[in-house]
Parts: sequence; structure tokens; C-alpha cells
Amino acid sequence: MQYHVNGELVEAGEATVSVEDRGFQYGDAAFETLRAYGGTVFEWAAHRDRLNGTCETLGMPEAVPDDLHDRIRATLDANGLKDAYVRASVTRGVQAGKLTPAAEVDPTVVVVVKPLPRGGVEGTPVWGGPATVRTVESRRTPEAAMPADVKTHNYLGGILARLELRGTDADEALVRDVDGNVAEGATSNVFFIDDGVLRTPGLSGPILSGVTRAVVLDIARDRDIPVETGWYGVEDVRSADEAFLTNTTWEVRPIGSVDGVAVGGGPVTDRIVSAFDRRVEGLYGSV
Amino acid sequence: MQYHVNGELVEAGEATVSVEDRGFQYGDAAFETLRAYGGTVFEWAAHRDRLNGTCETLGMPEAVPDDLHDRIRATLDANGLKDAYVRASVTRGVQAGKLTPAAEVDPTVVVVVKPLPRGGVEGTPVWGGPATVRTVESRRTPEAAMPADVKTHNYLGGILARLELRGTDADEALVRDVDGNVAEGATSNVFFIDDGVLRTPGLSGPILSGVTRAVVLDIARDRDIPVETGWYGVEDVRSADEAFLTNTTWEVRPIGSVDGVAVGGGPVTDRIVSAFDRRVEGLYGSV
Repeated sequence: MQYHVNGELVEAGEATVSVEDRGFQYGDAAFETLRAYGGTVFEWAAHRDRLNGTCETLGMPEAVPDDLHDRIRATLDANGLKDAYVRASVTRGVQAGKLTPAAEVDPTVVVVVKPLPRGGVEGTPVWGGPATVRTVESRRTPEAAMPADVKTHNYLGGILARLELRGTDADEALVRDVDGNVAEGATSNVFFIDDGVLRTPGLSGPILSGVTRAVVLDIARDRDIPVETGWYGVEDVRSADEAFLTNTTWEVRPIGSVDGVAVGGGPVTDRIVSAFDRRVEGLYGSV
Repeated sequence: MQYHVNGELVEAGEATVSVEDRGFQYGDAAFETLRAYGGTVFEWAAHRDRLNGTCETLGMPEAVPDDLHDRIRATLDANGLKDAYVRASVTRGVQAGKLTPAAEVDPTVVVVVKPLPRGGVEGTPVWGGPATVRTVESRRTPEAAMPADVKTHNYLGGILARLELRGTDADEALVRDVDGNVAEGATSNVFFIDDGVLRTPGLSGPILSGVTRAVVLDIARDRDIPVETGWYGVEDVRSADEAFLTNTTWEVRPIGSVDGVAVGGGPVTDRIVSAFDRRVEGLYGSV
């Protein structure tokens, strides 16, 4: 496998960053998880925009290289991959030994790829079955401490949430905000359906604006599935008719149970999965 | 300069970690900033205990190598350094491509050193003058989202605070908790003095339990300086008779002003600085 580090393709085993890189020392870096289908990066513009937004919040608005899309394609090509997981990181690079960031940034840009199964209508999901979800005590960092719409190498919140699942049968955490409202999973957005209405926590809460979340909302609008965003409790998800999680690699994954209470997919989830798969399938003809 | 990476001394320019190291990808790592005086690591036991505590919170209680103190000394020796800044990091290492940490951990251990001026009675502080402090909007992450007593590579909170100082004359941020109480600086603990009483935010708030903070409190007890810990507002610091910041590299640094309001050091600060310097001076005879 070859990765892309600072403009060069390098063997995965030699793909490194300095121990003084701020992305390592402080998690001072933006990243995106992307997915390529048939050689095309899914929702590239949305990911690029969010990456630029994260870098802007981090005070390095020019850090994302103009040719990042080319670097991703070059990395896929070098590994002969058409269906792949892609992680692209842009760090503040190495700077003098002060926490205060210098205005001048020489970013470190890293692209890592892994093979994934084919997606689309004939595809295989990366997950083996519906998610087993448990509510955890660790809360989502409030907006006042960290803007929710950034995706950075400060990812311990999700890790602490997952650590609480140790010794249980759960594979995803249901994370609440500090007021007790449902926020999201450790690596996913949460949706649930009651009486045919699709519900998901709104972006006025500390919710990552997931790219797959936006695609699902777009599909719902297209298909005249009523959508409501707002503030919800864990009980709302547990008692829902259907529930699912979304992220780039999982796509749309039904929730089997929440805290041991069976929920599962259903007709609305199926319609959304089917529309999502068709949208992805379109990419296989496009190259 | 040579650094210590995974048990080996390497040239600084070749001191790297894998782009797949979780310390890089997620900031999934514990660290300590230490200081050596005359070849001796100051307050080693306190730093080691906090590092172990952080690793325990991160679900990798055995990650700190038993010989970390030796690795630090070897790094100082290799560079001929007796007075130095030391940064020791312990990451969860490289694991399979899942956010959920595996139980088995092969940690990445990194020691970075830099020369610092001599400390103690005849020493020179690393700072050029009293701190110019400004209150920032970005808040300290609450305990519910991240335990405050961990010191990790998720350090963007402090970076966002420092970014707010861009374009001002300030060199340290005064960070409040989400309720508006004074918490700490971006990289320092805050103390202030009124009518001879030394005050600092208590550890029941989201405050890093700083090693230098503990030394200062110990000195105050020794010298019969009355101490009060509690919840304070920005106005309490601005209107104080004296105020100072503490951290390992700054030691005890007077606050010149807060939000443009002059504060400064004074007799109690001077007594504490003097006692601190004498404590450090003791290390120069110990090797």
C-alpha cells in the first residue's frame, strides 16, 4: 500500500510525520473520511468545503492544498483501488515550540487509503449487521468549548464514548449533549422514524454536520418523506418505529437495539437505503 | 539534537511516528511537559503519576513504560543537556482501522527535549516579562465531556483560546468554564492575591491539576500564606492586588494586566517566586 505524504507517494510503512508536527503534538489538524466508489470520491465538494471550514476555524484558511482531490486520486491509482476508504488530513505542520500558532503555515498533508467492498445497488455494506447501541455517560463537547462543525484530530470524545462500551455487546455509543439531549454516535449521526416522520437532532445542537446525514436529508426531501429536526431524548430513539446511523463508511446502518431495547430498520429506512444505493450506483458509470 | 522514539535515540530530523499512529490520527495519547534542572527532572513523581492517570482514563493503564525516567535521562545525556524542556508522550500506537481501541496496546513513546536557561536562585525565567492576559470567548471543555485531570494530545481547546489573541498584545488567554467561572490559562493555572490571601480556582471545576500549581500551594502552606480555592469571576482577577500564572516552563509568572487592567505581581508573589527558586536550586546540588 502507498500513502500520500506532503506531495509524495510513499510506502505505507514509511509514511510518517515528525514527532514535532502539531497534528501529532496537539491534534492540531483537520481531517475528512471519504469514500471512493468506482474510482470517484463520493460527495467530494461537501467534504472539501467542510475541510476548508475546519481549517478556517483553526485559523489556517489557506491550508488545504488546491490539488488535494488530485492527490487522493493519485493515491487510489497507485494502489489500484476503485472502492476505498480515504482519510485526508491537513495539519498545521511543524512550528517553533509555542502553543500559539504562527500566522505562516506550512501544512502537513496526508492521504491514507484502504480497500473497501463495492458500494451501490450490488454492493456489500462494511458492517455485518444492524448496530447495537448503548447510551454512554461521556457527553458531547458543547459548542462554547469547541465548534461542532469542525472535524479535527481531537477525537478523544468519541474514543472515551467507545471505551464505555467495553465489556458490553454494543458497537456504537449514543452520545448526549451536556443537557441530556441525543447528539450523535461516536462516529455517526442518528436518525429515527415515528409514524413515517424522519427525525434527527438539529444542527443547533453540538452535532457534526455529517456529509451522509445531508445526503439522507436530501433523499428524504426528494421522496417526500417528512423530516423533523429538533431536540430529542434517548427514550425517543428507544421507542422509535425505526432508527439508523449514518457515516461515510457505514453509509446507512440500521440500529438493531438501543440499551437492549429492540428498534430495527423498517420500510422508511429501506426506502432511504435503496435511494442511497442508487445514488452511489450512479458513480460506477461516471468514470 | 536527538530525540527518543520507541526505545531508540534518533536524530531529531528523523524522529517520526506513523501516519496511522492513533496519537496522530485522533490525538489518542497522553503527555507531560517536564523540566530538568541541573540534570534532574523536577517533580518527576507528580508528572509520572499524572501520566499514568491520563493513560488509565484513556483505557490503557499499562502504557507508560517502567523505564520512562531512564529514557528521559538518556535523551538529556545524549544532547549534553542539564537544563531543559522535556515533552514525553505515550500514544495508543498503531491499531487496526477502527475508532474503538483494542485492549492490546503497543504504545508509541516519544521524548523530545530542548535547551532552557538555568533555573533556581541564579536562573533566568523563560518569559521576558509579566504576562499580558485577555479573557477569551472559547470555554474550557466541561468535565462531563472530558475529564479535566487528563493531559492529552487533544489540545485544540488551548489553541482556539490562543487564536483569539491574534491581533492583540496579549500572550495568554484567560479561559472560563461554560458557566463563566475563571478556569485557567491556555497553558497555565491562574492565581491571584487579595488582602494577603492566595486564591486559585478549585479542582472541582474543569481545571488541570498542574504540577507547578501543587508546588505553589505547598509553598503557601509552608510559609503560612492563607490559601482559598473556589469559583471566581474574571472581575476577581482583574481587581486583585497581585496575580500570577504557573506552568512547568514558565514556573511562576506575574500577570501584568487582564483585559487591559493592570494587576502585576507584589510581595506575596515575590515570596512564592523566591521559595520556588530555592526549591529548584536544591536540585543543582543533588546530582
